[in-house]
Amino acid sequence: MTRVLRIGVAGLGTVGKGVVGIIQKHKSDLAKRSGCKMEIVAVSARSQKKDRGINLKSYKWIKDPLDLVNDPDIDVIVELIGGSSGVAYDLVLSALMAGKHVVTANKALLAHHGYELARIAEKQGVCLCYEAAVAGGIPAIKAMREGFAANDVHEVRGILNGTCNYILTEMLSSGRNFADVLKEAQAHGYAEADPSFDVDGIDAAHKLSLLAALAFGIAPAIDKVEIAGIRHITADDIRFATELDYKIKLLGLSRRVGNKIVQSVEPCLVPVGSELASVSGVLNAVQVQGDFVGNGWLVGRGAGEGPTASAVVADLIDIARGHHVPVFGVPVKFLKQADFASTDILTAHFYVHMVVNDKPGVLAQVAAILRDHNVSVEVVLQRGRDPGKPVSIVMITHKVKQADMKAAVKKLEKLSVVKGKISLLRIEHI
Amino acid sequence: MTRVLRIGVAGLGTVGKGVVGIIQKHKSDLAKRSGCKMEIVAVSARSQKKDRGINLKSYKWIKDPLDLVNDPDIDVIVELIGGSSGVAYDLVLSALMAGKHVVTANKALLAHHGYELARIAEKQGVCLCYEAAVAGGIPAIKAMREGFAANDVHEVRGILNGTCNYILTEMLSSGRNFADVLKEAQAHGYAEADPSFDVDGIDAAHKLSLLAALAFGIAPAIDKVEIAGIRHITADDIRFATELDYKIKLLGLSRRVGNKIVQSVEPCLVPVGSELASVSGVLNAVQVQGDFVGNGWLVGRGAGEGPTASAVVADLIDIARGHHVPVFGVPVKFLKQADFASTDILTAHFYVHMVVNDKPGVLAQVAAILRDHNVSVEVVLQRGRDPGKPVSIVMITHKVKQADMKAAVKKLEKLSVVKGKISLLRIEHI
Repeated sequence: MTRVLRIGVAGLGTVGKGVVGIIQKHKSDLAKRSGCKMEIVAVSARSQKKDRGINLKSYKWIKDPLDLVNDPDIDVIVELIGGSSGVAYDLVLSALMAGKHVVTANKALLAHHGYELARIAEKQGVCLCYEAAVAGGIPAIKAMREGFAANDVHEVRGILNGTCNYILTEMLSSGRNFADVLKEAQAHGYAEADPSFDVDGIDAAHKLSLLAALAFGIAPAIDKVEIAGIRHITADDIRFATELDYKIKLLGLSRRVGNKIVQSVEPCLVPVGSELASVSGVLNAVQVQGDFVGNGWLVGRGAGEGPTASAVVADLIDIARGHHVPVFGVPVKFLKQADFASTDILTAHFYVHMVVNDKPGVLAQVAAILRDHNVSVEVVLQRGRDPGKPVSIVMITHKVKQADMKAAVKKLEKLSVVKGKISLLRIEHI
Repeated sequence: MTRVLRIGVAGLGTVGKGVVGIIQKHKSDLAKRSGCKMEIVAVSARSQKKDRGINLKSYKWIKDPLDLVNDPDIDVIVELIGGSSGVAYDLVLSALMAGKHVVTANKALLAHHGYELARIAEKQGVCLCYEAAVAGGIPAIKAMREGFAANDVHEVRGILNGTCNYILTEMLSSGRNFADVLKEAQAHGYAEADPSFDVDGIDAAHKLSLLAALAFGIAPAIDKVEIAGIRHITADDIRFATELDYKIKLLGLSRRVGNKIVQSVEPCLVPVGSELASVSGVLNAVQVQGDFVGNGWLVGRGAGEGPTASAVVADLIDIARGHHVPVFGVPVKFLKQADFASTDILTAHFYVHMVVNDKPGVLAQVAAILRDHNVSVEVVLQRGRDPGKPVSIVMITHKVKQADMKAAVKKLEKLSVVKGKISLLRIEHI
């Protein structure tokens, strides 16, 4: 056991501390498992003085993370700075160019520059690993790229953002509205002070673009992900969904339909009792449909120090073991040109919630518009019958093309009896 | 792309056909993903004449599977014959001795001879892969050996036998008894004509011993697995469990308690709403607890042609990619000597179901015995109050050491008012 993997860690936030912690705590086991002594050589972070509660004395302190690249004593750089550009980008790019392996938890970076970075890693014959970028401690990247590699995958879905899942779970259990629960999540540290990356679906979209790349052998295409967040989900929507035996989840979804690929992140209804419905709180899940394996899924903690650091160190073990897999499952030259389509081509059941003035003939007006757009209705709920006053009408439709459904909703919103915006959510079965 | 992985397949049952099917159907994708052309060179099975619905014309037909070993054109042998000894054992042993890689779906073989075979594979510098041996298409072995490798794992649990899970799920949904549902499962092909390997827990125990080996860095120790099947589970037990908000599942479980390791396969109660409770029908699940990753689990189809073949081919891709991981996670010399303990050292809540003659003073007698064994009761259900007639008493206990619980049950069974055997099942929370 004389082989050594010499590591430079850039970024000592939550995850960075966790990585140092694992390598210190499991020194001996990691060496046995990987066949390599894992040695942190140098670390870099904003403030050297900050007490992080870990012992960093035996590591070189590097002020500018980019200087890690020039250190000949470093084999692999762990990038935990974050962000799709700036220092993180410069560091990863120059590390790969310098022939060093890179492990990163940076989904934004790979979603935006994955193709370019993969090309360079491949040319340089080094690893670019990112297990920690998707679904924290769950080995989702490994499952997609290796475990399910015998399959033609036609769909990957996931609950990819713990903050959103926590908020939706809390809204369900407490009956409170989005704003209240968000405030509480911020107080608990489950949501950032500026929550938009999470609650507007952007973080989930980054992750989804990576899963889609692996599923379909394409380059990540973040600009081709339709993104909607959860700010517009009301306590009423959650209550009505529950009454109809559904849960609302922010789903990342990429599906092949004919020779088109759809990529979206948006709140959807999933049947109570389905796998994804049971994934609650800060948990994440990734579900894959392959032609031979059928339906398989992985669930676990999607964020936090321990789980994310666990994934980073798993990547380091792979590198130590000499395990080298193409960044997106196939060499860059084999990545396919994808033909993306809007979710409007999907056919599904829909949840529709509108508030109308309760007057005679309203339902007839609504029904006529739906009929004109080929939308037939499976279930109708009407609550708060109170002539002349606004009441909620909630419908579950039969299967219908999303384009038709949206056109119908647009028309309905123009009716003078319909108050405000109509809430329209797709229902996703397996 | 001139590298070729030359494959010999021994056994052309369900899984063998699936493997041939994947390699034929996904020829081009597999080559791109693995960097190797996957070429089946030779096949061997009992009857050459049998129509298997697949085209075998381009492969050499080898009568005696052992002859595959001597074929210099073969790099890797896929053993799908099955059985812990006999031809399968001889084939795997001699293939490894001859310096050929082996991929197998044979849990019985590895549970009984894993240590010896791992030692030989390691000495020869070849791979011995067995993803398909546990939980079918779910990449559970890969998750344990690679994905969670940064962790100190203290527990692994699983629903590891699809036949049992199907039977228990059907008993729950239909209210029928074990024998009836077993018959139906046999008619559907979900249970073998001789179902004992499945319903007596032996198959699950084989799998559990492999998961435990990976979890704790020990050699598989099938003789140290406590095994109970599901034949004694009654429709009443299932009904009572449901009433108390539990489901009965055949759980494989290995847990570290202090410096002891417990290994068992037995029916347990799990809370409705827990992850394992939601795994129904022929699905399998593997759940891991690690010190950094926390609780992670994988779910999918645990058997059948597609899923199992998917796992076999994933192993072939790993071999083609040159991915070489120690058989049980660490080199054989590092495998630890385990100190096994009986489940009697576990502390848990228990479900107790007894039939008693409904006479005054019965409950007092029962309660006194429980008290004398430190068992305190959380919930009592009594059904069918009918003085002088047999009635069911069902209890959920507070946490108690299993040894005490069993001693109490033994005493209770000696009471003249207690009819027949008492049903005792441990409750497993996360």
